[in-house]
Amino acid sequence: MSLIVMKFGGTSVANGDRIKSVADRIIRQVEAGDKVIAVVSAMGKMTDDLVAIANQVTDNPPSREMDVLLSAGEQISMSILAMAIDAKGHVAKSFTGAQAGIITDGGYTKARIEQIDASRLKEALREGNIVIVAGFQGVTKEGDITTLGRGGSDTTAVAIAAAVGADVCEIYTDVDGVYTTDPRIDPKARKIDEISYEEMLELADSGAGVLQSRSVEFARNFGVVIHCRSAFSDEPGTLVKEVSDMESAVISGIAYDDSEAKVTLRGVPDQPGIAAMTFSKVSEIGANVDMIVQNKSENGLTDLSFTTPSKDLPKVTEILDAMVKDLGARSYVVDESIAKISLVGAGMKSHPGVAAKMFSVLAENQINISLISTSPIRISVIIDGEQKELAVNCLHTAFDLDSDSLFEETQLSSEELAAKAQKGR
Amino acid sequence: MSLIVMKFGGTSVANGDRIKSVADRIIRQVEAGDKVIAVVSAMGKMTDDLVAIANQVTDNPPSREMDVLLSAGEQISMSILAMAIDAKGHVAKSFTGAQAGIITDGGYTKARIEQIDASRLKEALREGNIVIVAGFQGVTKEGDITTLGRGGSDTTAVAIAAAVGADVCEIYTDVDGVYTTDPRIDPKARKIDEISYEEMLELADSGAGVLQSRSVEFARNFGVVIHCRSAFSDEPGTLVKEVSDMESAVISGIAYDDSEAKVTLRGVPDQPGIAAMTFSKVSEIGANVDMIVQNKSENGLTDLSFTTPSKDLPKVTEILDAMVKDLGARSYVVDESIAKISLVGAGMKSHPGVAAKMFSVLAENQINISLISTSPIRISVIIDGEQKELAVNCLHTAFDLDSDSLFEETQLSSEELAAKAQKGR
Repeated sequence: MSLIVMKFGGTSVANGDRIKSVADRIIRQVEAGDKVIAVVSAMGKMTDDLVAIANQVTDNPPSREMDVLLSAGEQISMSILAMAIDAKGHVAKSFTGAQAGIITDGGYTKARIEQIDASRLKEALREGNIVIVAGFQGVTKEGDITTLGRGGSDTTAVAIAAAVGADVCEIYTDVDGVYTTDPRIDPKARKIDEISYEEMLELADSGAGVLQSRSVEFARNFGVVIHCRSAFSDEPGTLVKEVSDMESAVISGIAYDDSEAKVTLRGVPDQPGIAAMTFSKVSEIGANVDMIVQNKSENGLTDLSFTTPSKDLPKVTEILDAMVKDLGARSYVVDESIAKISLVGAGMKSHPGVAAKMFSVLAENQINISLISTSPIRISVIIDGEQKELAVNCLHTAFDLDSDSLFEETQLSSEELAAKAQKGR
Repeated sequence: MSLIVMKFGGTSVANGDRIKSVADRIIRQVEAGDKVIAVVSAMGKMTDDLVAIANQVTDNPPSREMDVLLSAGEQISMSILAMAIDAKGHVAKSFTGAQAGIITDGGYTKARIEQIDASRLKEALREGNIVIVAGFQGVTKEGDITTLGRGGSDTTAVAIAAAVGADVCEIYTDVDGVYTTDPRIDPKARKIDEISYEEMLELADSGAGVLQSRSVEFARNFGVVIHCRSAFSDEPGTLVKEVSDMESAVISGIAYDDSEAKVTLRGVPDQPGIAAMTFSKVSEIGANVDMIVQNKSENGLTDLSFTTPSKDLPKVTEILDAMVKDLGARSYVVDESIAKISLVGAGMKSHPGVAAKMFSVLAENQINISLISTSPIRISVIIDGEQKELAVNCLHTAFDLDSDSLFEETQLSSEELAAKAQKGR
């Protein structure tokens, strides 16, 4: 008998029929002998509907009240799920974030979980209930309702799994796991059976949308095994867990992100403090910055490039003229047609040459690299957005990620062959 | 400076514009120097919408989860109202039943308030907030969400008024107060300025729909003054409060109820235990009984009549054949076209002759009475449903309730004149 946390997102509980399917899924698990805590998001468009009501009275709702409003969404879905389970002859009890003992700080709309008092949930399990918990929400020590912000329901699920000592935290989504890359971009993309927290974090940060990095961080910190799987099939998905270096694939996956724009300040005097001045101004206007690259050029001048989410670009361009003047730069260039391609793999720590191979594969395919940034287990490059698919496809094949590649004859170095054997364990 | 509880029903907060009007109303009170706790129901059709979602998954939702679901309704309206107040430049904080410290028993869907810990509300008032509280809901000592059932928001308002020692509990409705009778039935109906708890209770129980008797009982028990008034005007409405006998009008109002049916069992053997047997069977099937009258007839046989809500009639008729057989009765008759007319007035305790006058007024108007029941301050008669308006109109005039009747010449006994002078204080 296992104790399992099962998390279902808004799409999975979008209407009565889908909620009944979720109830069936949970009941199958319980009838197999397991104990289940289900964490649910608000139903489909409910959050949008609630925001629309708020917008009838204000453009700028106070965040405390916004959290009170939005948390009603999961309160609705959780009670409906409990009813659906009851209608199928099993006993269920639903709990709001506050009732579940999810204590957060007071950061309304983006609260952080500080502690979980899971005693009520444990008691409800002991009584034989299927336990349903509202995702996305908590309560301050003072008793005020909070929400956890983007990806909050995943975080709720992982945090509860940690608090009750669950064997696994299953995250049900509309895809059947984590893939070596986006199957819509590369049909040869392969589902990954197991991936380490660090790799999953790098993939999530690099644009792979399956799991929010916040919940993965939480899982890593508390050693919670995440099983990311399909809400529409019983096939196993991807396990996110501690994977020893010995087991690590050289490359686990390729992520892309075409939601950013690149800004380059040209001819900036190469003086200390220039970067600090630039990015403090950018952060003042609330824009996010992802990659930053500074290249020394001739005459003591330098080019300073950074990428920022396209949605933040209007705010950034507003201050660029003033910035060019303040910095004594020559000009600026904005490029909105870029894509970031990231190669992620814990094995690259012990396998030198991955970056070199990546660059040469891209060069062979006439793909120009404009920015490069790396972490110990990730290499990201900025390329022309129109070459996104080509880049993903050729890298996916070159790094031996294609779904049937184990049976193909390819030109691999001995090192690559070794890595492949290891990965195929 | 007064401390005022203002309660707004679902119609008053049905959409964004109405919620803004409610915000204006509250703000006017605050700008006049008062402190305000507003109690709100769920928005217009929200409760129906939530029930419809539940019905997508079950015909028989467990009551605990139904309360979780429905309580989301006020959580939405209260946060939207707080936002609307914020948008108009005032500070507001909303509280669920649980946050407001409304502790109930565990009777889901019809919980009773056991105690109120108003410390958070008082603190929020001290901090200068306009306080908004979800009506209709509470929480058990164990932390489970409950709802108070029909009229629950009024009860919340009165209970909070008692707990914080408010000067008045204002109940805002779509009518501008309590009337001597339904103005739709009798255009000469007059708004009552003040009425005692007892009279209000009798009117409510007799079919006058303005206030639920439960909240009036609560107000009486805790000495809370209720001000029942219009959500759409600033005119004063009706005060429900302790009124000394000396001040009591002979007749305060006339209520009617045409939602009942009359069942008569004919030729029942007149033996002890017959009534007990009859009504234990009726209560077994969950039907309500209002009036019961037993008349001895010839030959040791008796006629036993009772009224039951028309909605319960199908259940009752199912058992009537068996009942006739078990009781050894001759037959039964069901009359669905009846109306109950009730005369209510605390003054009738000290003014004999009211019943006699009522019966003669009805007789003069060719209105036949089929059942009579009384309380110390109420006389109710069952008549033909088609004569409902006629009965209300002629009684309203005869008992001097017409809006301009103080200036009319009418045929009054000296006793009636004395009563009228007293009422005209």
